[in-house]
This record gives sequence, C-alpha cells and structure tokens, in this order.
Amino acid sequence: MTCLFKKVGLFARHGKAHIVASLRELADHLASRGVVVLIDEESASAEEAGAHQRVSRSDMGKLADLAVVLGGDGTMLSIARLLAPYRVPLIGVNQGRLGFMTDIPLHEMLTSIDAILNGDFVPEDRILLSASVLREDAEVASALALNDIVVNRGGLGAMIEFEVFIDNQFVYSQRSDGLIISTPTGSTAYALASGGPILHPTLQAIALVPICPQSMSNRPIAVSDSCEVEFMLTRGLDTRVHFDGQSHCDLMEMDRVIIRRYRNPLRILHPAGYNYYDMLRHKLHWGERLL
Amino acid sequence: MTCLFKKVGLFARHGKAHIVASLRELADHLASRGVVVLIDEESASAEEAGAHQRVSRSDMGKLADLAVVLGGDGTMLSIARLLAPYRVPLIGVNQGRLGFMTDIPLHEMLTSIDAILNGDFVPEDRILLSASVLREDAEVASALALNDIVVNRGGLGAMIEFEVFIDNQFVYSQRSDGLIISTPTGSTAYALASGGPILHPTLQAIALVPICPQSMSNRPIAVSDSCEVEFMLTRGLDTRVHFDGQSHCDLMEMDRVIIRRYRNPLRILHPAGYNYYDMLRHKLHWGERLL
Amino acid sequence: MTCLFKKVGLFARHGKAHIVASLRELADHLASRGVVVLIDEESASAEEAGAHQRVSRSDMGKLADLAVVLGGDGTMLSIARLLAPYRVPLIGVNQGRLGFMTDIPLHEMLTSIDAILNGDFVPEDRILLSASVLREDAEVASALALNDIVVNRGGLGAMIEFEVFIDNQFVYSQRSDGLIISTPTGSTAYALASGGPILHPTLQAIALVPICPQSMSNRPIAVSDSCEVEFMLTRGLDTRVHFDGQSHCDLMEMDRVIIRRYRNPLRILHPAGYNYYDMLRHKLHWGERLL
Amino acid sequence: MTCLFKKVGLFARHGKAHIVASLRELADHLASRGVVVLIDEESASAEEAGAHQRVSRSDMGKLADLAVVLGGDGTMLSIARLLAPYRVPLIGVNQGRLGFMTDIPLHEMLTSIDAILNGDFVPEDRILLSASVLREDAEVASALALNDIVVNRGGLGAMIEFEVFIDNQFVYSQRSDGLIISTPTGSTAYALASGGPILHPTLQAIALVPICPQSMSNRPIAVSDSCEVEFMLTRGLDTRVHFDGQSHCDLMEMDRVIIRRYRNPLRILHPAGYNYYDMLRHKLHWGERLL
Repeated sequence: MTCLFKKVGLFARHGKAHIVASLRELADHLASRGVVVLIDEESASAEEAGAHQRVSRSDMGKLADLAVVLGGDGTMLSIARLLAPYRVPLIGVNQGRLGFMTDIPLHEMLTSIDAILNGDFVPEDRILLSASVLREDAEVASALALNDIVVNRGGLGAMIEFEVFIDNQFVYSQRSDGLIISTPTGSTAYALASGGPILHPTLQAIALVPICPQSMSNRPIAVSDSCEVEFMLTRGLDTRVHFDGQSHCDLMEMDRVIIRRYRNPLRILHPAGYNYYDMLRHKLHWGERLL
Repeated sequence: MTCLFKKVGLFARHGKAHIVASLRELADHLASRGVVVLIDEESASAEEAGAHQRVSRSDMGKLADLAVVLGGDGTMLSIARLLAPYRVPLIGVNQGRLGFMTDIPLHEMLTSIDAILNGDFVPEDRILLSASVLREDAEVASALALNDIVVNRGGLGAMIEFEVFIDNQFVYSQRSDGLIISTPTGSTAYALASGGPILHPTLQAIALVPICPQSMSNRPIAVSDSCEVEFMLTRGLDTRVHFDGQSHCDLMEMDRVIIRRYRNPLRILHPAGYNYYDMLRHKLHWGERLL
Repeated sequence: MTCLFKKVGLFARHGKAHIVASLRELADHLASRGVVVLIDEESASAEEAGAHQRVSRSDMGKLADLAVVLGGDGTMLSIARLLAPYRVPLIGVNQGRLGFMTDIPLHEMLTSIDAILNGDFVPEDRILLSASVLREDAEVASALALNDIVVNRGGLGAMIEFEVFIDNQFVYSQRSDGLIISTPTGSTAYALASGGPILHPTLQAIALVPICPQSMSNRPIAVSDSCEVEFMLTRGLDTRVHFDGQSHCDLMEMDRVIIRRYRNPLRILHPAGYNYYDMLRHKLHWGERLL
Repeated sequence: MTCLFKKVGLFARHGKAHIVASLRELADHLASRGVVVLIDEESASAEEAGAHQRVSRSDMGKLADLAVVLGGDGTMLSIARLLAPYRVPLIGVNQGRLGFMTDIPLHEMLTSIDAILNGDFVPEDRILLSASVLREDAEVASALALNDIVVNRGGLGAMIEFEVFIDNQFVYSQRSDGLIISTPTGSTAYALASGGPILHPTLQAIALVPICPQSMSNRPIAVSDSCEVEFMLTRGLDTRVHFDGQSHCDLMEMDRVIIRRYRNPLRILHPAGYNYYDMLRHKLHWGERLL
C-alpha cells in the first residue's frame, strides 16, 4: 500500500527516557515501511536517534510533510506553533493520559499511525491566532497561539484596566485580572477555568473571556474569527501578554495587542472513529448514555 | 426620493393606548409619503386604524415587504417568528427603554424610519431555530424560535434527565433543571441568566446552556449552526419544551426534540450608525471609554 | 458493655427487597444485643419485620431514642424532617454509593452501628429551617426543611418577581427563576447546582441562592442562621414553594414565606474517624494529597 | 452634651489637596467642640495641620480613642490594619462615591460625625485575619488583613498547586491561579470577582475562594471563623501571598501560610439608620422595592 506521507518528523517531550525509547521505536517502524524519518534535534541525541536523520527544529517545517508528537497537550502546542507556517499536519500520541489534542494512546501508536499513513484518518482543522504587540505604532513583539493570547497582571496583585475594540468598534473598558482571547482549541484550557464557554473546533469563533472582572456583567463573548480584536492597556504597571503560556512579552501602559486569525489552520490527523464529543465527555467526566 | 419598501406592515404591543397612538402617527406619516400601510388587525381596532387598511396577522407575511414593530423585545420576538417564513425585514421601535432588538427610540421614530426607507440603514441577519418534537417518530409539534428552545422541568421541582446528540453523535447525558438551545440573539436573554456566553449575531453558532446542572462540568458549549441538535428526554414526568417563551409543548419520556437552523434568517434594519457593541454595552452597563 | 441507646427505630427506602433484607439483618442483630427494635411500618411489612415490633411513622419520634436509616440522602431527608421535633439522632447507611449524609457502607453496617451504640461516634448537628407561608397574614402552610426551601416558577416558563427581607430589612427585589434558601446541609444539593457556595455544617448560616437571576449582580449571599428571611412574591402566576423537594405549596401573588432556623437541630451520628472534608472530597472529586 | 470620644485621630488618603482641606475643616470643627485632634503625620504636613497636633502613624493606636478616615475603601483598609491591635473604632468618610466601608458622604461629614460623637451611631464589628508564613517551621512573615489573604501565581503565567488543611484536616489539593481566604468584609471585594459568595458581616465565617481552578468542582467554601486554615504551596516558582493587596511576601515551594481570625475585631461606627443591605443594594445595583 502506498503511503500518503513520505517524510515524517518526530518530536518528543523533553527529558523523559521512556518517551525517547518510544520515539526510537516509532522511527525504526516507519523506516522499515520506507518512510523517511526526521528526528527533531531537541527531542533526541545523536546516540538516541541511531541511524535516523536528526533535523534542527527550524528546518523541520520545510522538510517534513507530517509530524508526530509524543507527549502531552503542552508539547503539541509548541510544535503546532512551530509548524503552522508550513502547513504540516500533526498527529498526537499521549503518554498514558488522554489529551485534548493527543488522542492516540502509546500502546496503539504503531497500528494507529500505520492506518493514518494508509489514509485512514479523520482530519480536523484548528485555527491559530496571530498577535502583534504595538508600542506607539511600532511592533515590539509578535507570536502565534493555538490555545490563547492571555493578557494578565503580574505578581503585584493589582487589577489592570484596559479597553477592547473589535473591528475598530469599541466594545468595553474593563477592570480585571486580565483577558483571555481564545481559539476553540483553547476554550477547554485556561478559558474554561475562567468561566468561558466550550467552542467546538469547527466553530469559526474567538472567545474573549475576562479573568475575575470587577463588574459581574463582563461576561464571556464569542465573535467570528474573521474579526480583528484589539486590546489596549490603559492601566497596569505589571502586565504581560502570554502566547499559549509558552512565550510572553511585558506590556507598558498604552501598548496595544492586535489579534487576528492566522492565515494557516493547523491540521490534526486523528484515527478513524475519532469523535470530538467522545474525547470531551471523557476529559470532563460528562455523563454516559443512560439507555 | 424613491422608497425601497412599497408596503409596510405595522405592529404594536397589545393593549397600550399610547403605543396605538404612535402606530397611527407612523401610519399617517408613511401614507403621506406614498407608502402603502398595512396595519396588523390585532394591533389596532378599525377605529384606531382610521383610513388605513387592516390585515390579518396570517396574511401580513404575504403582503408586506417591510414590518415595523412598536413595543419591546417580546413583541419583536413574536412578529419575527410570524414573518420569518416570508423573509420580511423588521424594524424595532422601543417604548422608552432600549431593547436588544428594538433600538429606535420613539422620539426618533419618524426620522429614523424615513432614513431607512431611503436606504440609509444597517441590515443585520439573525438566525432562527426550527424545532420538531417527535414521539415514536411522529412529529407532535413544531415551531420556530428567534431566541431559544428551552426544555425544562415543570412545577414538581424534580430535576430531569436527558441525552443530547449533535449530528447524530452522542454528546452527554445530563441531570439538571433543563437545557437551553439558544441562537446568538437568545444568548443575551435567558441563556445569559443561566451562565451562557454572549454570541455575536454574525457568529454562525448555536449555544447549548444547561440550567442548574447537577454536575459542575456540564458547561455551556457553542457549536456551528449547521449542526442538528437532538434532545431526548429520558426521565421527567413534568417536562415542557418552550419556544421563545411564547408557545410550548408538553414532553413525555423518550420524546425527542430535533433542532436545526431555520432556512430563512430574520433581517433587522437598524438606523445608520448602529453598532451591536454600543447596544450591548448600554444594556449590560459595561464600562465606557477611559481615555 | 452498656448500650447508650435502648430503643432504635429502623427505616428503609421504599420498595427495595435487598434493603428490607438488610433492615431485617440489622434488626435481628440489634435484638440479639438486647436493644429494643422498632421497625417503621412503611419500611417493612409485618411478614418482613418478623418478630420485631412495627411502629407507625407518627409514633416513632416519641418511642425511639435513635434511628437508623437505610437508603440514600433522599430517605435521610424525609426521616430527618419527621424526627427533628423529637430530637432523635440519626445514623445513615448507604446502599453502595456514599451519600452526603448516609456515610456508612452496607458491608460495615453491623460493626459501625455496634461501635456507635458503644459510644464510639462523631456527633454532628445540622440545622433545619422552619417555613411558614402567609396569605394576607393567615398561615396557609408550614413545613420543616433540612436541605432547602425553594421558591420557583412552574412549567409556564416565565420568570417570577419577588422581594426579600432579612430581619425586616429590605434586601432586594429580583426577577429570576426563583430563590433557594438553603441550610449548610443543603449547600451541597440544589444550591450548589445553582452556583451557591459550600457551607460547612458547623457554620451557623443560611444561604440565599438566586436561580438564573436576570441581573448578574444578584449573587448568592450567606447570612447568620439567627436571621428571619422573608420572601414575598410580587409577580408569578405559576409559583410554588418546595420543602426539601418532598412537599410543596402553591403560592399566590403577595404571599409571603417566612423562614427561620428550626428550634431543634438534627443530630447525625457518624463512625469514629468521620471527617466532613473527606466526604466532600470524595463526593466532589476534589484533588487528593500531592505529597 | 458630653462627647464619648476624647481624642480623635484623623487620616486622609494621600496626596489629594481637597481631601486635606476637608481633613482640616473636620479638625477645626472637632477642636471647636473640645475634642483633642490628632492628625496622622502622613496625611498632612505641619503647615496643612495648622495648630493641630501631628502624630506618627505608629503612635496613633496608643493615643486615639476614635479614628476618622477620609478616603476610599483602600485607605480604610490600611488604617484598619494599623489600628486593629489597639481596638480603636473607625469612621469612614467617602469622597463622592459610596464605599463598602466608607459610608458617610463628604457633605454630611460634620453633622454625621457630630451625631456619632454624641452617641448616635450603629456599631458594626468586622473580623480580621492574622496570617503567618512558615518556612521549615520558622515564621518568615506575618500580617493582618481586613479583606483577604490572597495567594496567587505571579507574572510567569503558570498555575500553582497547593494543599489546604482546615483545623489540621486535609481539605483538597488544587491546581489554579491561586486561593483567596476572605473575611465577610472581603467577600464583596476580590473574592466576589472570583465567584465567591457574599457573607454578611455578622456571619462568623471565612470563605475560601479558588481563583480560576482547573477543576470545575473546586467551588467556594465558607467555614467558621474559629477554624485555622493552612495553605501549603506544593508547586509554583513564582508565587506570592498578599495581605489586603497592600503588602505581600514571596512564597517558596513547601512554604505554609497559617490563617486565623485575629483576636480583635475592627469596630466601624456608622450613622444612625445605617443598613448593610441598603449599602449592598446601592453598590451592586440590586433591584429596589417593586411595590
């Protein structure tokens, strides 16, 4: 049977010996199928990679046409942000605990990935957000996020004040601990802990979820993902903007963060039979069928 | 100047003399512009209508190419459900208190409507939901809703139990006071009081908002409005489904309610300068600009 | 060893053969210890009770100096309301699933109850509420509640309007689905599903928890249980007040419900080692120790 | 008429010229009544204080038998923490906006304070919390709080993990942004923004309110204020404990914060006719009487 993907990049969560062993097992298996295996330099040493080619993280997007991530949702997030510009689809293999995105259990890794390589998979596209931080109209930082852009107060403990505009229309000013601008993917992460709604991945939406707002009417709002969201910090000496909780940038008063949907979606490949609601019900302990 | 709308149907909230007076004032004004005025029979008596033509509620959709509603959001809801099959756009005139949909104040009625008739307006399309109640596969009721379809327990006080499917995929079983299936329009009504998110009208979404669920992880979820939502009552001897809070149907155990987006959206015409966020900020007392 | 309790009343949840068998097993065991066993007439037939004395439910309070309830929290509630006027302490035996009040598992029933009879127990006092429904100053109903007094709309679906006074001081008017007036015991029941706080049983408090209030600032409030709470229905044609979800009374507009702490607390006897937080953590799936 | 208070300390919010002018006006008025006026050194310069005696902040508690605070709730908090060890009652004068504690408007200052000095007042006792930070059993910090003790993550953005014990009983482990341990006074401050209940000031309670907990069942809990609450940080490299948002202490993993009710309550004197619910209704925009 022909294989849809010729060059497969492999990534593993840092510093776990048993994960590296699984990575090697997968690499050997794929090579035996005739797939070109590219191992992320940061995921395995030369010794651990054996005969397989190691590739720098920055080159992977150009070289691979599929990536497999062994780890949790956090690892998946960082690889997604890395590969999104190159439209490389991702497969997530968890390490024992079902993730929101890493849905293949380790013991089914080889058979599930074989099936996917043979074309038997459920593709799912997830939007990313692109954020640009402006200081007096100069861009001082920019980043992608698959989960969320979070602006929040730092350790000083005082609430911050800000204004929000959507498509250049003023929405509200707010005093709170901060604001989460979340994708559907991020709606089951920090946004959920802050009282936000769950957004199905196919919903073309962005959620704005206030963090501990002083006014109780400042409720979460979901808008079309074709909107441009602008956050302007009006008060807060100790404020940061975080991108997927993996990188951040300090904000000064009057800084603005401009957020748009990123041009490329992330494509995740799931095993046949995958169902978002099954995953959600499992993760959130929702009730099973009664009858 | 030519007028975009030739035949304008007029509706007023029941039983308020001053509203009927406003309706007559508007009718006279429109007639003087050469517009054919059609007055809803239930909104004004023959005497109150004067020389203007009165039309039965059931005929209005076929005859009018624009409708003006004098009243609150409740009146707007009932006329929207009536006219949606005929694609007649609506204008809402409030009676002193800004509504979520009735945004023209009485004292600006004539000038605002003149401008709209001249083509100077902001159109806004709102989805409706179409619900079908099935008992052993026979449809026992059906209805449209602009705000929400609400299934809830009655006065006996016991929680109900049900299962939800989306596009034939099982989502969850739940024990609660009920479930709200809401449009973006309804997201600022009962769904908001039950902890649901605000959905911008342009978001093509339906929200499922549990009412006092026993399990705290049963959080609101928003899905694409192209989904089919199926509610199946598994336990609850005293359960009803409500359509916009204006009509209802008793449910028996094992009854199913099938909910889809209605084929026609409702078009609301707003005066130039209308902005959804301004309205929301005013209604919810959100913070104004700080700078 | 002497036994602290001479006459023990036994209650079981209705209509479950295996529960009746457990009841009989317990009765035989207690009798063999020399305890006078009184079996609730509604819990077992004469045949099921064998040689043990059956007692009418209304006489039990006067005769027993301890009661054992086999069933769930619902059965416990109804027996608590029955026996509270007589200050008879209760022991709860669950049928497989830990209850908030029924904490002895069936397989430990005999040893746990033996230990309690020997004086080895943790007593816990729970307040009850006493409600009086007034119509034009005449009392039309009254009842006790261990969990909560709930006023809510019926099946018509329209929100109700009411005013609340505490110690004759006006607190607020509200438009909502209803109001829960809850004891600490009830704080983990319906009040929790409606967004109320958990109140530790030793906290001398009553919580007022709005059900889906239209105004988002109508948040739960806890006051001293020495307060008198007055609820006055100002609008709602289809409104009821429920007592522990076990009895109810229809309300008319302008009816008032006066709520006070009942003069007697309910005493629950737990096995040695009982800890409220352990029970809560188990029931709510809170995190266990990390270290 | 005799005056109940002989020596009155005066405090004003920093750096506002018009507040200092009001302070001087009050000082002159009180002196004319024969009251000994003590002006807080930090609130007014020698020139601003005129002939009135200035007293260092640290001496005020020993010298004054009543204190008047001109400012907002924040100023009131800091003076309360200062004077609580000395049992000096406080009066709060707001600067235009009703505070939760500063309830006398400036334009009624002289008449209200005259009446209070004549004995015409409503006293209200508020508990404070006393916190001790332990590192390997050595106390590294301690502080009082009238509103709350807040442990939260800093600017790095990662959730923290901790365990909570009440009266040495394990309650839960939790992963969240932090935890608020709040008095009834603080229940309308940050705790309310985080989803906590309102606790009436006479309720002898402490609320534990999680901040954005990862698990949705980690709901607010209120316990008796005679309890000892222990917070132990198990994970969080960037964590602080804040006392009323006015002072703080960095925490290291395994640090413990022990919280007890402070031995002295704070007494606030309100003008006759004061009613907690009136204040609350005004601040939270609750509904007024309907009838």
